[in-house]
Amino acid sequence: MIERYARKEMTEIWSAATKYRIWFEIEAHGCDALAELGVIPKSAAKNIWDKGGSAEFDVAKIDEIEREVKHDVIAFLTHLAEFIGEDARFVHQGFTSSDILDTTLSVQLARATDLLLVGMDRVLTALEKRAKEHKHTITIGRSHGIHAEPTTFGVKLARFHAEFARGRARLVQAREEIAVCAISGAIGTFANIDPKVEEHVAEKMGLAIEPVSSQIIPRDRHAAFFAALGVIASSIENVAVEIRHLQRTEVLEAEEFFSKGQKGSSAMPHKRNPVLTENLSGLARLVRMAVVPAMENVALWHERDISHSSVERGIGPDSTVHLDFALHRLAGVIENLVVYPEKMKSNMDRLGGLHNSQRFLLALTQAGEQRESAYRLVQRNAMKVWEMFRTQGNAGEGAFLNLILSDQDVMALLSEDQVRAMFDDEYHLKHVDTIFARVF
Amino acid sequence: MIERYARKEMTEIWSAATKYRIWFEIEAHGCDALAELGVIPKSAAKNIWDKGGSAEFDVAKIDEIEREVKHDVIAFLTHLAEFIGEDARFVHQGFTSSDILDTTLSVQLARATDLLLVGMDRVLTALEKRAKEHKHTITIGRSHGIHAEPTTFGVKLARFHAEFARGRARLVQAREEIAVCAISGAIGTFANIDPKVEEHVAEKMGLAIEPVSSQIIPRDRHAAFFAALGVIASSIENVAVEIRHLQRTEVLEAEEFFSKGQKGSSAMPHKRNPVLTENLSGLARLVRMAVVPAMENVALWHERDISHSSVERGIGPDSTVHLDFALHRLAGVIENLVVYPEKMKSNMDRLGGLHNSQRFLLALTQAGEQRESAYRLVQRNAMKVWEMFRTQGNAGEGAFLNLILSDQDVMALLSEDQVRAMFDDEYHLKHVDTIFARVF
Amino acid sequence: MIERYARKEMTEIWSAATKYRIWFEIEAHGCDALAELGVIPKSAAKNIWDKGGSAEFDVAKIDEIEREVKHDVIAFLTHLAEFIGEDARFVHQGFTSSDILDTTLSVQLARATDLLLVGMDRVLTALEKRAKEHKHTITIGRSHGIHAEPTTFGVKLARFHAEFARGRARLVQAREEIAVCAISGAIGTFANIDPKVEEHVAEKMGLAIEPVSSQIIPRDRHAAFFAALGVIASSIENVAVEIRHLQRTEVLEAEEFFSKGQKGSSAMPHKRNPVLTENLSGLARLVRMAVVPAMENVALWHERDISHSSVERGIGPDSTVHLDFALHRLAGVIENLVVYPEKMKSNMDRLGGLHNSQRFLLALTQAGEQRESAYRLVQRNAMKVWEMFRTQGNAGEGAFLNLILSDQDVMALLSEDQVRAMFDDEYHLKHVDTIFARVF
Amino acid sequence: MIERYARKEMTEIWSAATKYRIWFEIEAHGCDALAELGVIPKSAAKNIWDKGGSAEFDVAKIDEIEREVKHDVIAFLTHLAEFIGEDARFVHQGFTSSDILDTTLSVQLARATDLLLVGMDRVLTALEKRAKEHKHTITIGRSHGIHAEPTTFGVKLARFHAEFARGRARLVQAREEIAVCAISGAIGTFANIDPKVEEHVAEKMGLAIEPVSSQIIPRDRHAAFFAALGVIASSIENVAVEIRHLQRTEVLEAEEFFSKGQKGSSAMPHKRNPVLTENLSGLARLVRMAVVPAMENVALWHERDISHSSVERGIGPDSTVHLDFALHRLAGVIENLVVYPEKMKSNMDRLGGLHNSQRFLLALTQAGEQRESAYRLVQRNAMKVWEMFRTQGNAGEGAFLNLILSDQDVMALLSEDQVRAMFDDEYHLKHVDTIFARVF
Repeated sequence: MIERYARKEMTEIWSAATKYRIWFEIEAHGCDALAELGVIPKSAAKNIWDKGGSAEFDVAKIDEIEREVKHDVIAFLTHLAEFIGEDARFVHQGFTSSDILDTTLSVQLARATDLLLVGMDRVLTALEKRAKEHKHTITIGRSHGIHAEPTTFGVKLARFHAEFARGRARLVQAREEIAVCAISGAIGTFANIDPKVEEHVAEKMGLAIEPVSSQIIPRDRHAAFFAALGVIASSIENVAVEIRHLQRTEVLEAEEFFSKGQKGSSAMPHKRNPVLTENLSGLARLVRMAVVPAMENVALWHERDISHSSVERGIGPDSTVHLDFALHRLAGVIENLVVYPEKMKSNMDRLGGLHNSQRFLLALTQAGEQRESAYRLVQRNAMKVWEMFRTQGNAGEGAFLNLILSDQDVMALLSEDQVRAMFDDEYHLKHVDTIFARVF
Repeated sequence: MIERYARKEMTEIWSAATKYRIWFEIEAHGCDALAELGVIPKSAAKNIWDKGGSAEFDVAKIDEIEREVKHDVIAFLTHLAEFIGEDARFVHQGFTSSDILDTTLSVQLARATDLLLVGMDRVLTALEKRAKEHKHTITIGRSHGIHAEPTTFGVKLARFHAEFARGRARLVQAREEIAVCAISGAIGTFANIDPKVEEHVAEKMGLAIEPVSSQIIPRDRHAAFFAALGVIASSIENVAVEIRHLQRTEVLEAEEFFSKGQKGSSAMPHKRNPVLTENLSGLARLVRMAVVPAMENVALWHERDISHSSVERGIGPDSTVHLDFALHRLAGVIENLVVYPEKMKSNMDRLGGLHNSQRFLLALTQAGEQRESAYRLVQRNAMKVWEMFRTQGNAGEGAFLNLILSDQDVMALLSEDQVRAMFDDEYHLKHVDTIFARVF
Repeated sequence: MIERYARKEMTEIWSAATKYRIWFEIEAHGCDALAELGVIPKSAAKNIWDKGGSAEFDVAKIDEIEREVKHDVIAFLTHLAEFIGEDARFVHQGFTSSDILDTTLSVQLARATDLLLVGMDRVLTALEKRAKEHKHTITIGRSHGIHAEPTTFGVKLARFHAEFARGRARLVQAREEIAVCAISGAIGTFANIDPKVEEHVAEKMGLAIEPVSSQIIPRDRHAAFFAALGVIASSIENVAVEIRHLQRTEVLEAEEFFSKGQKGSSAMPHKRNPVLTENLSGLARLVRMAVVPAMENVALWHERDISHSSVERGIGPDSTVHLDFALHRLAGVIENLVVYPEKMKSNMDRLGGLHNSQRFLLALTQAGEQRESAYRLVQRNAMKVWEMFRTQGNAGEGAFLNLILSDQDVMALLSEDQVRAMFDDEYHLKHVDTIFARVF
Repeated sequence: MIERYARKEMTEIWSAATKYRIWFEIEAHGCDALAELGVIPKSAAKNIWDKGGSAEFDVAKIDEIEREVKHDVIAFLTHLAEFIGEDARFVHQGFTSSDILDTTLSVQLARATDLLLVGMDRVLTALEKRAKEHKHTITIGRSHGIHAEPTTFGVKLARFHAEFARGRARLVQAREEIAVCAISGAIGTFANIDPKVEEHVAEKMGLAIEPVSSQIIPRDRHAAFFAALGVIASSIENVAVEIRHLQRTEVLEAEEFFSKGQKGSSAMPHKRNPVLTENLSGLARLVRMAVVPAMENVALWHERDISHSSVERGIGPDSTVHLDFALHRLAGVIENLVVYPEKMKSNMDRLGGLHNSQRFLLALTQAGEQRESAYRLVQRNAMKVWEMFRTQGNAGEGAFLNLILSDQDVMALLSEDQVRAMFDDEYHLKHVDTIFARVF
């Protein structure tokens, strides 16, 4: 985990202190259930909560014990016994380590998801706000990096909103996949522990029960979880790449907020770089890289092997921490994005109205021309405008219109009024309301 | 796509003939909607269905045209015009190529998913049947490849059933993600095409509408789709690895069906190898490898670039075809799996009852012994049995019992009856019904 | 393998006909060695060459036999026997299937690499030619997509040349890794086959011998091979992304060659899209996706399992075929790239000389100013020019110079002559020769 | 980076303190070169070494400055100035941040590689020692997890040795790829910095010069580097999987060393689990997951973007630290591996000599039998033995021999002496010397 890309709220979920606290709670709830079943004395269960609930576990000490016994849960239980005294022997009865470890991971991933949902919501809110602000801010749509036809900046953002809303739904789904509890004992047969213990702990920890565990919770759940994060990370990259493009010098239709005192480059004082969104592109790769190992973790040997564990010690915290950071960074970028509507307009207009080429194609077709020849008619004019733009940097206002008006073959098919009417940009935006109504 | 790992039903979905048929249907449904809106004559729409609906498209000819015009959809439309005649100019009005291509991909992926669901159901049925057949077939559960405690072979299969049931639910979800239609024209603004056309085509093709497309359907949908396939592939690998383990010479608790006339090895006539499940392990890797590129496809430039296309030409057919094949191969393996219950029992028994070690640990703890010293008491006897097993290949019946009975420290805490009662294997299986009730 | 992205020379390496021809050669060379060792009659070895060497193997028939015996090598040997007659029993003596399969894969990968090297060389030649052509074509260097300082288009291409030269060296290395022969029999112990057979076949097939095979050639070799392809694919993507950027409307400093009759968009006749380089971006992902499964193939069970095989049936042909295609497509793009030097110059100049900001920073520092305050002095002028550029699309010639000249604080430190001298673009290019000398 | 899987020697390479020390050295060596060229005063260069060389940089303070200026190198330079005073203005002249950052990363990766080579050598030494120790320890070779023919445990280890020797060679290669210095200024044109500075710094830091940098060192180098680590990680997994198999209860031919006081399971006192090698399987996935993002980093925008940076902040330390740890863990496992030669022998013998089936096949062929019918003759006897083994757990000594002797069809072709001679296990091992001579 890279501290630079971490928020405290999320890293705390993954701290040793939090982990031991969850371990304790699972054990103590388990004792309650065991006491209820008459397996251990009720007084012991109470004592465990009383003495353990207020205990400050000493992480360093647990580490030290672990180095000796080479087993983390046993190390913790040994430490716990120091607080609880003799009743400690009732703790963990019929449990196996995985009951604790896997259920704890579920709790951590569920809590992490709750935080991620906060981040998603912040992104969604920012996208909605800016989308509505720029609902009618006309800008050229680009396919293949080439000017195509107009759209609005608000529509771009609405599109991202819809994408993040899908991501949010997937995250809710992923939380459901992962928020499960398994207290089923060795090999998952409940031989030494009543299924009622699992039910009780699950309820108290806010989890569903795992229908069939095999000492561990099946790893297809985790694979699906990390895959969901990977898709969201890819959506973050999608927005990031858009902004990076908009900020590039020749486009400059929007810029990341650049604060006073900020330096874009140690060497070149004129620079303002889209470093936040470039960073998001990188963070997306980091989150995505957890997906394949999480899938490789699914096929464990027989009832379980522990090869998944080291992987999850890495990707568990790393993916959630970095995605959480990325979501808030992205939200900040969107909230503060400096947008230049005039630049959007002027960039579009430098092509002299060329973005209406399809309208002519359609009009000529409807005027009875075959598609092929209509295409040639429009293309021969369009390419001239394109060359004017390329050589002069600006085709000039009305460039396409003027060429069309002087093309006898076109004018034989269309009236001047028809032609002039085709340079109304509002035409392209007439369904913006429709689109917004579908999203918001 | 590797033909050897392909079923005809699935490859046909990806054939050129199927593709062009879907292209035609989308265009023709589009014409109906345009006619209804009064954009084109109703007679034209009818004519298009009449002449195009019965047309046998010539794939080679379309390829030839494409080599000239370097555009696949234009090549198709040119070919289509040969059938339809003059009315061909009304086809594709206001459409952009992506409207056709992306919606077609949606149809193909949705149909592919329907086939995959058939495969999943066959796997689920096979797992359920064999699980119930072996509900009480006792076998040792293994963690870390080491004998742990008994379970049943049916429980193993029930666990896989639950895993595939989750995979099925994800697949249904993935189908929903992907079954969307976009007929929104260049840049997705509906400038030259009424949203009603999209609605009509979507309904006719059995798809939902894409709320905001940007000429293309957003690729987070496809990323989520291929990720879902990747997780299922990993679950296939999970079952495959289990069977490969069970068939290895020293275990030999189950075998893939080996037909008459089959040869395990060209060189060694004694061999029967688990080649089907090894093959499934490999196929899982093939399906999984599509996940990351599908995620890399999400961040396209501005409204769209076409970098995703070549990737999807590969992974679209390959992942669905290979997963489909793998599901049916897996189902066949499970249906025909030769299971050796006596071998399961005898393998377990070779450790002389050692699988009851935890019960002693718990009994000693409940008899008042501290966990630590109870552990040592059991471990010292257990390790002796283990050595007997290791050196002699079989610890012998009652090995663990006899050692316990002659351990004074243990016997000071437990009565002989208590000790003897701990070698009842049914103890371990008492919750098999509970588990089955959760799954089936 | 996607036929659309395949060249015949490469696909032929992977055809069934080629495969069986290589199988035959390995077997026949093996027979020669066995005959030399006196294991089989020399007449048999001669007969095998005579009758098998001219045989036209019937792929469909072999497939049919395989469906029965479920073993590809046995199916081939059965078919081969039809040509050779009784002496067929001397074929494959002491061999195991993997001896044939793995050595064949080595031959195919080695030949594929030879073709890839041809492609690399074509790319290198094209890069060198165009680099030298544009050695002095000034263009703005961009970091973070933002104008930084001038470089030349030739330097960009020289950089790519150096990168591909490294890729070529890695490919030569990868060929060495993979061009190995194993004829070591079951489990690789040479129990039934003399190591001299391996030596003979290796020499005849142009391979090195595998020091220790375990029935199969160790898969770390293949993993390293596919990783080398993956890095080259990433370098292809690197060049592709550069060209896609240069072609985007607002930049338009270079364009993929656009032939007569070509259509950029079925809907918008004005469009010329960088579809080849976008395609290369996608192909890069396809080639790269083989890397992880190839690594997953390394850890096989004991002496071998066959899980790697299905993976390699996919990635073997796919990765080499697509990379081969991509290299030639890239070479074509570079060879035919339409470069607009004036556009490069005018794009640069639209920022009014701002690219010299660092020179001022350095000059002020050398004039005794602290770095911090020098930075502020330059930045305050630079940002004004930047705003002029942003709002007007062109800061105007001399914009930065004029501002500097009227900044009293700067002029207190530098003379007017010093200031004016800092707008000489040749300053930035003075080491182009140095760089070229390092590369070519 | 997961501390639990980290060795101090490696983590120190990635500490902030080390990083700043390297930054300082690069800057100071650069000043020496600049002074030599007469760009800055020699006294300044000396002063910088004097005051900076002994400085204890305050990491927290640099962090604090960075939070304000949002630029890490500027933050460091500001802090450095506190030590150096006025001469600080001569530091970093003509440098750009990437000159420092990228060259530092090269130094760190080169040093990390040196440590990895130590780890590789420890593994190689352990493998060689144990291979020679067990050169003649007979064990069954297994393909598909099924008994095939005998080999020796030493041959297994020799194979791994050869694999790691290849990995070592790749690592040396990877070090060469990565050990490069770039001090080429903004955009890599040397406009403001003489190439002699780069040469000087490179030499002093033990690096080669980068022929063409573009402000940054091209990322194909890093991609190749991380790919090399990924292949080595896969080889680690390969050995780990072998050992995990050998330790599984039914095989138990070798075990990880299990120390006094160690607990295999908190619940089941009888367990000794191969947790170290399972852990290595997981660590392999962690190292491997860096490969794809490192490849995604290659295609940066124009001369550079900074998306690679966050990725490398993660994978740079993580991959080298975890691989380093894994190598030492693996070496320890091999050094201390408890091997059971008698168990290897008895496991093999439980199949009653079946591992000689191929010898019979060959003998029958050489006795004139057609391959097909020879195969059937052997297989029918072999399968009987197999069933005896399966049902009784042990086919019994001489089981295969006895069946063959009573098979009239076989005995019609072979003499009893011939048959009996085929049960000499030394036959299988006669080329062990050959194999060892190829490796050691």
